[in-house]
Amino acid sequence: MRLDHAGIATDDAAELAALYADLLDCEIVHEEEFDGMAVVFLELGGSYLELLEPLGDEGTIAGYLDRNGPGIHHLAFATDDIEGALDRARDLGIESIDDEPRPGAWGHEVAFLHPRDTGGVLVEFVEH
Amino acid sequence: MRLDHAGIATDDAAELAALYADLLDCEIVHEEEFDGMAVVFLELGGSYLELLEPLGDEGTIAGYLDRNGPGIHHLAFATDDIEGALDRARDLGIESIDDEPRPGAWGHEVAFLHPRDTGGVLVEFVEH
Repeated sequence: MRLDHAGIATDDAAELAALYADLLDCEIVHEEEFDGMAVVFLELGGSYLELLEPLGDEGTIAGYLDRNGPGIHHLAFATDDIEGALDRARDLGIESIDDEPRPGAWGHEVAFLHPRDTGGVLVEFVEH
Repeated sequence: MRLDHAGIATDDAAELAALYADLLDCEIVHEEEFDGMAVVFLELGGSYLELLEPLGDEGTIAGYLDRNGPGIHHLAFATDDIEGALDRARDLGIESIDDEPRPGAWGHEVAFLHPRDTGGVLVEFVEH
């Protein structure tokens, strides 16, 4: 697989995107509102940062910010076979949060694994 | 810049490396003991996971594990000009933890920025 992106929880995706674009000399390649969040992708040599800002008080990112403050939320790994990747995870005894792939930001299929089984890391599989 | 790696704090780098190698269909490309830690790099399409296991009770990773438990510790961005990257960060008002680049794992030059100024993300610049 390929390290596709790191997801970052933030209170202000536009402001943080502008800062990272300057700091890392990279460009915003996608912006949308998805699932109650403002989502911004910055490209860095074929990988991405995904900035996630909740647009209300509900949802997983709003809860994450309440508990942890802003910071790195998850790591996503790109696969051409997300069903196969989920099967492999289950064969390794890793619990998946999503039983089946579901639509994610930017029109991708995504599925998350339980961080308890992956060394405390919230792992996302993503199929472009 | 390029997203070089995500650094993951763990109590058992060898065990977690074996799990990720199976889960993500990737390979261990470097292992060493560095600065009081066992360090393992896994390659994923030109980017890496860096697993960091403290070998004693002292040091930043041991402290991180005490406070947060295992999980994603930092994001590293590759540059061919780490001095210039640090200058750019300072021009943007971002405090650096390292005033000058210093030797990091795998023979690289590294410098860290203060997460307070980068949206809660511990950012590392790395020059291979």
